Amino acid sequence: MGARAPRLIAEENGVDLQVTLAGPGDRVARIYRELRAAVLDGRLEPGDRVPATRDLARQLGVARGTVTAAYDRLSAEGFLEARTGSGTYVATVSLYDATGDAMGRSTDASGDGRRARPGAVHPLPLWEATAPRPSRRDRPLHDLSLGQPEPALFPLEVWRRLVGAQLRRSRLEESAYSGRGSPRLQREIARFLGLARGVVASGDDVIVTAGAQQAVDLMARVVLAPRAVVAVEDPGYFAVHRLLETHRVALRGVPVDDEGLVVEAIPPETRLVYVTPSHQFPTGVAMSLGRRVALLRWAVEHDALILEDDYDSEFRFGEQPVEPLQSLDRVGRVAYVGTFSKSLLPALRVGYVVPPRSLAAAVREAKRVTTWEGDLTTQGALAEFLAEGHHAAHVRRATRVYRERRDRVLAGLAGCADLLDVVPSVAGLHVCARFRDESVDDREAAARAAARGVRVEALSDHYRRLPPRPGLAIGFGGIGADAVPDAMRRLEAALRGAPGSGTD
Amino acid sequence: MGARAPRLIAEENGVDLQVTLAGPGDRVARIYRELRAAVLDGRLEPGDRVPATRDLARQLGVARGTVTAAYDRLSAEGFLEARTGSGTYVATVSLYDATGDAMGRSTDASGDGRRARPGAVHPLPLWEATAPRPSRRDRPLHDLSLGQPEPALFPLEVWRRLVGAQLRRSRLEESAYSGRGSPRLQREIARFLGLARGVVASGDDVIVTAGAQQAVDLMARVVLAPRAVVAVEDPGYFAVHRLLETHRVALRGVPVDDEGLVVEAIPPETRLVYVTPSHQFPTGVAMSLGRRVALLRWAVEHDALILEDDYDSEFRFGEQPVEPLQSLDRVGRVAYVGTFSKSLLPALRVGYVVPPRSLAAAVREAKRVTTWEGDLTTQGALAEFLAEGHHAAHVRRATRVYRERRDRVLAGLAGCADLLDVVPSVAGLHVCARFRDESVDDREAAARAAARGVRVEALSDHYRRLPPRPGLAIGFGGIGADAVPDAMRRLEAALRGAPGSGTD
Repeated sequence: MGARAPRLIAEENGVDLQVTLAGPGDRVARIYRELRAAVLDGRLEPGDRVPATRDLARQLGVARGTVTAAYDRLSAEGFLEARTGSGTYVATVSLYDATGDAMGRSTDASGDGRRARPGAVHPLPLWEATAPRPSRRDRPLHDLSLGQPEPALFPLEVWRRLVGAQLRRSRLEESAYSGRGSPRLQREIARFLGLARGVVASGDDVIVTAGAQQAVDLMARVVLAPRAVVAVEDPGYFAVHRLLETHRVALRGVPVDDEGLVVEAIPPETRLVYVTPSHQFPTGVAMSLGRRVALLRWAVEHDALILEDDYDSEFRFGEQPVEPLQSLDRVGRVAYVGTFSKSLLPALRVGYVVPPRSLAAAVREAKRVTTWEGDLTTQGALAEFLAEGHHAAHVRRATRVYRERRDRVLAGLAGCADLLDVVPSVAGLHVCARFRDESVDDREAAARAAARGVRVEALSDHYRRLPPRPGLAIGFGGIGADAVPDAMRRLEAALRGAPGSGTD
Repeated sequence: MGARAPRLIAEENGVDLQVTLAGPGDRVARIYRELRAAVLDGRLEPGDRVPATRDLARQLGVARGTVTAAYDRLSAEGFLEARTGSGTYVATVSLYDATGDAMGRSTDASGDGRRARPGAVHPLPLWEATAPRPSRRDRPLHDLSLGQPEPALFPLEVWRRLVGAQLRRSRLEESAYSGRGSPRLQREIARFLGLARGVVASGDDVIVTAGAQQAVDLMARVVLAPRAVVAVEDPGYFAVHRLLETHRVALRGVPVDDEGLVVEAIPPETRLVYVTPSHQFPTGVAMSLGRRVALLRWAVEHDALILEDDYDSEFRFGEQPVEPLQSLDRVGRVAYVGTFSKSLLPALRVGYVVPPRSLAAAVREAKRVTTWEGDLTTQGALAEFLAEGHHAAHVRRATRVYRERRDRVLAGLAGCADLLDVVPSVAGLHVCARFRDESVDDREAAARAAARGVRVEALSDHYRRLPPRPGLAIGFGGIGADAVPDAMRRLEAALRGAPGSGTD
């Protein structure tokens, strides 16, 4: 509030009215708002007389017409009423009851009535259970946390060109309300999935989403009634678990062993099984063929749906590509979810789902009613990015880069082979290692690593309920190959409790 | 499939095996997939012997190493097993049971097992009730349907520059996982809302969404338990009604009169009231101050939340701006929803919600778990667009353009004053007129207009259950001012049943 702002203390009819002309907005609007606030706050009560326009204008140092315009507006909206020959009064429509006493007059001096207070509307309990997320403001020297692709690999100049080409008038005029998204992107994703992942899909089968989370959300909306039982991997991916819980379902953790999800441990009443078979999150295990077959059979026998999240297996380091569950499915029991957040850039926020055909219309409808079809500029640019071969080239190039980082992480872990067993994996942007000594506190180990400037994740942090097997998850998406050896030396030193700490 | 593709009919052990090398993918992958498909389809059964690599290579005209690589991969994945000295066999892991008999062997010759069939997983009933949406492929001569802003007004060159400036590496490297979206955009929206709409909000109060539909969706998630009663305007906005229904709530239509929603008709058990007070959809009525106060009081007395959708009132044509319900709210009972889809362009898909502070953390969490924070490039560009004043300038310019169109529509309606009463309104991109003769079939009238090349909407199409008062809703966002007179002449001719039809 400016120090030189005109200010008025009016004491007509005992009313203490302050009007200040500081702040944004024209003077008419300013006077209008000040007076209206006084009415709403109860400083002016129904039947109070307000200052004559001439008096108020003089005191504020503005033209009388300015005050008159503000009064006219307040009168038109029913806040004030002119009584012929006797002046202008606060209208007797009982604003006061609605905004003051009826809900307990505000007692906070700032006059800010929007803050939470007794009687305020509250969220449903399922939204109150939110744990605060750990702040990541403090960047460590070496960040080996999970889910971070390397932004420097993103072919920015190509992307700029493609986005620019989308920003033409003819594209922007296309209706955003078809609910269909970009058919071209759907076709390109289907082609990419068929070639790169063996997924059986046409463009009509692909529903483009705002990231994989929305894909999971849409599937949950479409098949899960409240209290439905949903099986998830334990350890598993908490962001999706949390999302599923908000659908009022009963989440059941199912153990994961060296062949992936233990199918026989799935509760029989399960309606949906959420799995990451290509590169289990967080352990990295690839689900064995036997388990895949068993899971498909289980889904048929129990009339359940499998939700396969293939979040980062574009980056493959083994000889044998492991193809998705969806490519084995001949009976429409698998919904396949993928994302460009890992293979390209999280900021794109583009994912997709290929549901069984029996669900496709419903999923498309669920997308339409919630977010229509998303950002068509990004979708159009991504379609061209795929069609022109940039995506395939990017994945090849990025795989080489990530392979080098991964090899160096594995080399570092080999130096700790007396402490840690590496979990075999063939894809993705992180590896896991389990402590040979199962009594190790992996959170404490991660904290010791952090004290030496290395951020890794404790496997225990990804367990729901099972007695966790202690270990570390080590991401290599966000660290340059040159930095890996130093990071791994520091990690080893932390694990061995060698002297010397700090991030120097 | 290429005509010259090598093709093999193998009849070993009575197995009819066809391998073709046409189609995309390298030859190893092709052989791998053909054989795998044969196993999955049951053409090869567990225990069957597959051709020797030497024989298959000869027959396909490929190097033996190619076939060996495919067999190795199939073996690694468990489809085949080599028996020393006796050849390679289909593995006895019972793929067949899982993908064939257990779910009824596919009988469709295409081998496409993903289509819906008995036993397929089905969506929940609430997703099956979807009415097919009318196709809009046939563009009429004059399109006066609702919800279409003028794309030619969009300042494309400015937007291109701002988007281009966002596409720099430092921006793309920002984590997309904070769940906070662009704080700058939140602040700019709060500033814009305060200046232009009198909405009381700081940046922390603003949650940016993928359009207004997502804003409504998030609010519904956060406050509506299954079977909660939700009051909506009747007539009203069906896209939002449909969205709310998918949250398993009980929707109740409440009549709208010349002062807006009839507050006393709201069912007492209502938990949420969805309203469009600035420019009621579709009638265009502005809610009177008395009703606004009554609605706020009602919400307090009944412990309910008001969801205010201010979808298109940036464009104001009256002397007196009508400020939102939210600006009257001193007790945290109003969630304010807005969008840039109408004021700028639907394709942007950016909206926002300003919930009461008691709900803000939950709404933010709901956004985070479903779609993280959306497209940061668009959000960043929009923040600059607002900060540099382009949005305010655009709204001023567009208001002039729309005012001219609106005046011409109203002039045309004045010529039909014996048939139609214009519903007074002060904002937005459409006007309504009711038939003086309440026995008129407005759908039939709209069909007659369509036959003359003019698309308008029948008010009856926007009613849920109440006996509709017939009328027409006429949008002017998508038609140039020069075309309006011809459109209105055609409309009048249609209404009067004058001779001459067609779109000439």
